[in-house]
Amino acid sequence: MNIRNSTIVALATPAGTGALGIIRLSGPETFPLVDDIFIGADLLTAKSHSIHYGHLVDTSGDTIDEVLVFLFRGPHSYTGEDVIEISGHGSPYILQKIIERCLEKGAVMAQPGEFTLRAFLHGKLDLSQAEAVSDLIASQSAASHKMAIDQMRGGYSEKIQELRQQLIHFAGMLELELDFAEEDVEFADRTELIELVKNTQKTIQELISSFRLGNAMKNGVVTVIAGRPNAGKSTLLNRLLKEERAIVSDIAGTTRDTVEEILNIKGIDYRLIDTAGIREAQDQIEEIGVKKTMEKISQASLLLYVFDVARITAAEVTEDLKKLKHENLQLVVVANKMDLYPYAKAEEFLSPYLKQEQFIPVSAKNDMNIEYLKDHLYQLITGSTENRESVIVTNTRHIDALQKTDQALQSVLNGFQSQITSDFIAMDMRQAIYHLGEITGEISTDDLLEHIFRNFCIGK
Amino acid sequence: MNIRNSTIVALATPAGTGALGIIRLSGPETFPLVDDIFIGADLLTAKSHSIHYGHLVDTSGDTIDEVLVFLFRGPHSYTGEDVIEISGHGSPYILQKIIERCLEKGAVMAQPGEFTLRAFLHGKLDLSQAEAVSDLIASQSAASHKMAIDQMRGGYSEKIQELRQQLIHFAGMLELELDFAEEDVEFADRTELIELVKNTQKTIQELISSFRLGNAMKNGVVTVIAGRPNAGKSTLLNRLLKEERAIVSDIAGTTRDTVEEILNIKGIDYRLIDTAGIREAQDQIEEIGVKKTMEKISQASLLLYVFDVARITAAEVTEDLKKLKHENLQLVVVANKMDLYPYAKAEEFLSPYLKQEQFIPVSAKNDMNIEYLKDHLYQLITGSTENRESVIVTNTRHIDALQKTDQALQSVLNGFQSQITSDFIAMDMRQAIYHLGEITGEISTDDLLEHIFRNFCIGK
Repeated sequence: MNIRNSTIVALATPAGTGALGIIRLSGPETFPLVDDIFIGADLLTAKSHSIHYGHLVDTSGDTIDEVLVFLFRGPHSYTGEDVIEISGHGSPYILQKIIERCLEKGAVMAQPGEFTLRAFLHGKLDLSQAEAVSDLIASQSAASHKMAIDQMRGGYSEKIQELRQQLIHFAGMLELELDFAEEDVEFADRTELIELVKNTQKTIQELISSFRLGNAMKNGVVTVIAGRPNAGKSTLLNRLLKEERAIVSDIAGTTRDTVEEILNIKGIDYRLIDTAGIREAQDQIEEIGVKKTMEKISQASLLLYVFDVARITAAEVTEDLKKLKHENLQLVVVANKMDLYPYAKAEEFLSPYLKQEQFIPVSAKNDMNIEYLKDHLYQLITGSTENRESVIVTNTRHIDALQKTDQALQSVLNGFQSQITSDFIAMDMRQAIYHLGEITGEISTDDLLEHIFRNFCIGK
Repeated sequence: MNIRNSTIVALATPAGTGALGIIRLSGPETFPLVDDIFIGADLLTAKSHSIHYGHLVDTSGDTIDEVLVFLFRGPHSYTGEDVIEISGHGSPYILQKIIERCLEKGAVMAQPGEFTLRAFLHGKLDLSQAEAVSDLIASQSAASHKMAIDQMRGGYSEKIQELRQQLIHFAGMLELELDFAEEDVEFADRTELIELVKNTQKTIQELISSFRLGNAMKNGVVTVIAGRPNAGKSTLLNRLLKEERAIVSDIAGTTRDTVEEILNIKGIDYRLIDTAGIREAQDQIEEIGVKKTMEKISQASLLLYVFDVARITAAEVTEDLKKLKHENLQLVVVANKMDLYPYAKAEEFLSPYLKQEQFIPVSAKNDMNIEYLKDHLYQLITGSTENRESVIVTNTRHIDALQKTDQALQSVLNGFQSQITSDFIAMDMRQAIYHLGEITGEISTDDLLEHIFRNFCIGK
C-alpha cells in the first residue's frame, strides 16, 4: 500500500445532524484546492495552525456554507502532509455538498483509516500507535480507554523497540562470528548471550501473559454463574449487581433463559451470565436451559460455581467441577447460604476436597462476604500484574507476533544447547527480530496494512 | 432570557462514533477553565484564532485525550464571548469524559441553541439570521439550503430593517406634529406620507405572498394526483418520476393505498400523492381508498386532476372539480390519453367548459407533453416571483409578524381617510414598527427567545 500522491477528503465527524461537522483533507493539493473554493484569507500563504473565517462557493459562485478553515502545514499535521479541516454547519446536505465540491476540484474520497495510514507512512506514529487510535475511538470503559491512550502515547512501542534493539545487537555479534567462521572465533560470550536471550524471552512471555488482562480490560471477562438448582445463583447475581435483575424464588429451576448483565469492578467489565441449574432435566424446557448453560460455560473465561453448603455432598461438588472445567477456564467456588450453616462446620465439611483458599463462603441473601468475592474476582484477573511490566497487550495481532517471537527465541536457546552452527542460530534470531518488528510496523506488508486500516472509520 | 454569566459547554458534533468530535465552550471562564486541564501551550496568553496541540488531563493527572484546542477571543468569535473548541477523538466515552471534566471545573451544560442565543444577545447576528442557522442545519434540498444561506447572510434582515427605518422616520414626523398639536401644524405632507405607507404595505404584501413559494421551497409542495378510475393517474406518476413506482394495470381501481413520492423540479420538492380513483365505491376496500383520497386532497396545496379524454363528459369533469376544489388549492387539469384521441378534437370537445390554457393535454403512456407539465407545475409555484423582491419568507413566525404589520399599516391608511387625529395614527404606526422589529429581534421577549431557541440542537 503505497502513499497515494492524491489529496484525500472525508467527513471526520459522525454522520447526522449537529451544530457543526468537520471535513478533513490531506495531501499535496490541499491548500490550492480549498483556496480555490474559499472566499476569505489567502490560504496559500497562511501560517500553520491558523484559523480562517470565510465561505465556500460552488461553480456559479453561490455560497455553499459559511465555514471556519483550520490549516496545518506538513509535516506539522496529523498525517505529516498539508492538512485542512473545514468546520461547517452540521447539516448532512451541506457537508455532502462540500465534499462533492472538493471531489469536483480533484480530491479523492479517503479510504477507511487512510489519514492515519498516511501518518504511519510519514513516520508520525508507528503501527501499534495507529492501532491504538482505532481502539481509542472504540473505547467504552475507563480501562480500555486508559490502555488505548497509553499505547497511543508510545510507551508500549518503546518497550517493544527496546527488546528488538537488544536482539539486533545480539544478532550483530552472531553474524560477525559468521563472517569469521573459518577462523573459528567466538566474539560473543555464549553464557552471557544465553542469559540475554532468556531475559528477553521472559519479558516477552510476561507480555503474552498480560494479554489475559489486556483482553479482559478491552472486551470484558465472560463470567458464568453455574451450579445446581436452587443454589442461589440468581440471588448472587442480584447481590453482585445490587439490583433485582434476575427473578428469584424458592422453586428449583426458576431461571430458564440465561440472564446477562455487566458488573464493573474497578474499571473491568465482568459479563455475568446467570444460568439454569445443572441437573437431570425435569422437562424439555429445562433440558434446553441446561444445554445452554453448558454452551455458555464453554465460551467463558471465568466460572463462578455456586453451591448450597447445606444441601450438597463433597462427592457431588467434585462431580460437578469435573463436568464443568475446561482448559481456559478460571474457577471460583462459592459456598452459598452460609447464613444457614455455621462457618466452622462448613470448613470442616468441605476440607476433604476443597482447601479453604479454594472456596469463598458467602451468603448472597444476607450480603455476607460479597465485597470480598468481588475483590477476589478482580485479583484473579489483575492480581499477578502488580510486579510485572506495566505494559499490557490487548491486540490479538500483537499476541500472535509475540508468540512467534517466543518460539523463535526458544529455537535460539535450543540451538545453543544442541551446539548447532551459528548460522542456524542467526536465522532463528532474525525470525525473532522480524516478528517483533511486525508489531510496531518496522516490518510491514501491504496485506498487513490493508488488514489493519480497513477496520478504521473513514475520516480517521 | 438574560445572558447567563456562566461558561457553557456542549458537544457540537453529532452523537456517535467518528474520527473526531468537537466540544464547544463559551463564556468568561473559558480560557482559565480549559487552560487548567490542558497540558500544552499557555491558553491565557494565546492569540485569537490559534490552534494548540496538547492533552487534557483528569484530576489525577492522567490523560483523557490528546486534543487540538481551537481558541477564539471575544468579540471575534461565534458567540462574541471567549470561545474554545476542543477537537478530540470521536469516541462517545471520551467526549463525555471531556464534558464531565469541564463541568467539574465549573462550566454548565449549554441549553439548546444557547451559543446562538448568546451570539444574538451580543449583536453578532439578528433574530432572523439566528433562525436561518437552525434552518440551514435542517436543510435537505438545494432550495431550502439556498434560502437559509441567504437569510443567514443578512439580505432578508436588511430588507426588513430598511422598511422599518422608513416607518420610524414617518412615525417621527407624525409625533413631531403631536408635540405641536395645539398649533395645528402639519409637518408631513399627507399625500406623500400616504404614498409612502402604501409602498411599504405593498412590499410587505409581496413578502407575505412569497411565503407560498418559501414554504414550498422549504417544505415541498403537497401535490395530489386525483381523478376517476383508470384515468391513468399511476401511469402519470410513474412518468413524472421516470420510474415504475406505482402498480398500473388496465383494471379500474388498481391503486388502493395512496402512493407517495417526491418529484424534484429545479430544486423544488413536489410531494406527489397518487390516489385511488374517485367513483362510487364498488366494495369496502375501495370505499376506504376514496375516503383517503378526499382526505389527502383536503391537505394538499396543489391538485393534478387527471381525466381520460376519450371516456369522460364535460358534465362529469365539472362535477368532479366542484367536488374536489377548496380554497387553498391550486388546480392543474390534465387531459390524459391524448394518444387515443386527435388533439384538435379534444380541444373542441373540451372547449365548452375548459378553456385551452386551463388544461394540459398529455399522454402519460407515450411521454407526450410531460416535460411541459413539469414546467407548468414549476411556474405555478415560482412563476409570479420573477419580477418580485428576491427576498422570500419561509418562517411562519415572520409571516405572522408581517401580517400584523400589514394590518397596522391598513389601520394607518384608514385613519388618514377617516381623518382621525394623528395620535391614533401614530399608535397604529408604532404597532407596525413593533411587529417588523419582532422579525429581526429589535423587539424580543424572553418568551419569544425561549420559543425560538428551544428548537435548536444543543451545541449550536
